[in-house]
Amino acid sequence: MPHCLGIDIGGTNVKAALVSDEGTVAAFLLRAWSGGDPADAVAAAAGLVEELERPGGEARPNACGVGCAGLVDGARGVVRLSPNLPSWRDVELARLLSEALGARTLVENDANAAAYAEHRAGAARGAGNAAVLTIGTGVGGGLILGGRLYRGSHGFAGEVGHATIDLDGPACACGGTGCLERLVSADAIVARAAERARGGSSALAAAARAGALTAKDVGQAAAGGDAAALGVMEETGRLLGVGLANLVEILDLEVIVIGGGVASAGESLLSPARTEMAARVAGPPWRLPKVVPALLGETAGVVGAALLAAHHFRTPA
Amino acid sequence: MPHCLGIDIGGTNVKAALVSDEGTVAAFLLRAWSGGDPADAVAAAAGLVEELERPGGEARPNACGVGCAGLVDGARGVVRLSPNLPSWRDVELARLLSEALGARTLVENDANAAAYAEHRAGAARGAGNAAVLTIGTGVGGGLILGGRLYRGSHGFAGEVGHATIDLDGPACACGGTGCLERLVSADAIVARAAERARGGSSALAAAARAGALTAKDVGQAAAGGDAAALGVMEETGRLLGVGLANLVEILDLEVIVIGGGVASAGESLLSPARTEMAARVAGPPWRLPKVVPALLGETAGVVGAALLAAHHFRTPA
Repeated sequence: MPHCLGIDIGGTNVKAALVSDEGTVAAFLLRAWSGGDPADAVAAAAGLVEELERPGGEARPNACGVGCAGLVDGARGVVRLSPNLPSWRDVELARLLSEALGARTLVENDANAAAYAEHRAGAARGAGNAAVLTIGTGVGGGLILGGRLYRGSHGFAGEVGHATIDLDGPACACGGTGCLERLVSADAIVARAAERARGGSSALAAAARAGALTAKDVGQAAAGGDAAALGVMEETGRLLGVGLANLVEILDLEVIVIGGGVASAGESLLSPARTEMAARVAGPPWRLPKVVPALLGETAGVVGAALLAAHHFRTPA
Repeated sequence: MPHCLGIDIGGTNVKAALVSDEGTVAAFLLRAWSGGDPADAVAAAAGLVEELERPGGEARPNACGVGCAGLVDGARGVVRLSPNLPSWRDVELARLLSEALGARTLVENDANAAAYAEHRAGAARGAGNAAVLTIGTGVGGGLILGGRLYRGSHGFAGEVGHATIDLDGPACACGGTGCLERLVSADAIVARAAERARGGSSALAAAARAGALTAKDVGQAAAGGDAAALGVMEETGRLLGVGLANLVEILDLEVIVIGGGVASAGESLLSPARTEMAARVAGPPWRLPKVVPALLGETAGVVGAALLAAHHFRTPA
């Protein structure tokens, strides 16, 4: 079965995988990476690819897809700029990786790659119109419209995290106020939990006082039935639901997939999000999309990048 | 030159036009209509078509497009429901008009038809990705994505007016709060102007006290330099700009076209909208779409419906 290489270069780690043309991960490796110049990233990726075991000793795939945060010019294979990697400007990532790996390489925005993966091999499989949100330290998004990855006019589409839902909400680095990202990302959850736990005696309160509270802790406490944590996830889920309702009004989607670290909170987040979305969207209930957790987890980026490369390099024009 | 019939059935009037396959209006008629059952609408449309003068005595076109507010099932030619025409449920509008006119008939949502018209023959001509907003008593929207009319999964796409931008804003009939429509439609402008004019001695204040103020009055007063009216349009434009920024973040558009009665205020509305949009969208300035007035005015709906019919019935499958 033919395979492609999938690579994901983020602000904190580099991932590589060997992915079948159907989206199955044959091998996956992750290495922490503190950021740096493009040559470092390429060396880290090449090291991982060297380590990947190929099934049955198969030769190294001749096609590679790489996902990278930021503004990507896919046609030229260039990362124009990346908020997570501020020193990167007009990096010819496709050429650099192609030379290092001996494989034709395609570059895509990481949120787009993740969306494509969930569409082809995950929770949005078969959907004509879908949004895939990745909620962690930020809120990334990718759109599948008319069965295809939608990139917009300059490769910026899907920045759902920077759509305003609360005009009087907190200021965001993007220049807006009350952006969805400022209201539902990991930082917002931690701040909300610290506020609610203030003076309390729970484990959450102790962690908050020690400055050691994470959104994952809050999600796990909610899953364990902790009332304060459940309240935080309910409030966060409702705010997420406002953002989802906006996507539904504008795009009339079949499915919205929620992934990323924050999504590990599961139903304590998704259930109030669905309720709020439904309350805000007029019309018949069959208009509403399914809101489901992502299926591919931390491999979404590499799977999507590999599948995009498979499609690009193996489809006759 | 071949022509199509274009018809637009709204809550307050019926329009009909003879439109060339390039989008030129050869003849246009409008008749006030107070709503009613589908047979009334079809009779009114057929009456207008009878009156339309055909260039050079050309035979009646054999293809017709009709735009109608509400949820349209284009494949079946059915208007499923319409907020402006509450008695309409699953109306077979294509069949009824086809029988009355002797022309094959296609049904489309009216905002989608207007967007298609601006794309093919108006202010969004040539744009790959565009939004067309119609701001009047409500805020309608249609999307052109990837060079095609985007309808979404159930024909509901483009409901930009019901996306929330101000969570704590006024309640909307849709179930949401702080929807764009509640903040920038004609009613919002009148309310804002009445508030600002309270106790004043301007013509606006007198009209507001008499309950006779319209959004058009406010726009005209702004164009004439009236400070209070300019302030109202500035505030309204800034709120519109928040909604436009959301569209840019989500869809990365080339152009946003603003039409409808409120748009006749021109630059007093569009200039602050552009400023606010630019302030809220991070990234390089070339990322920003043009924000321009609609070109087709009250004929947009009939032109779009006719062009969609021409495309549908005259393009070989």
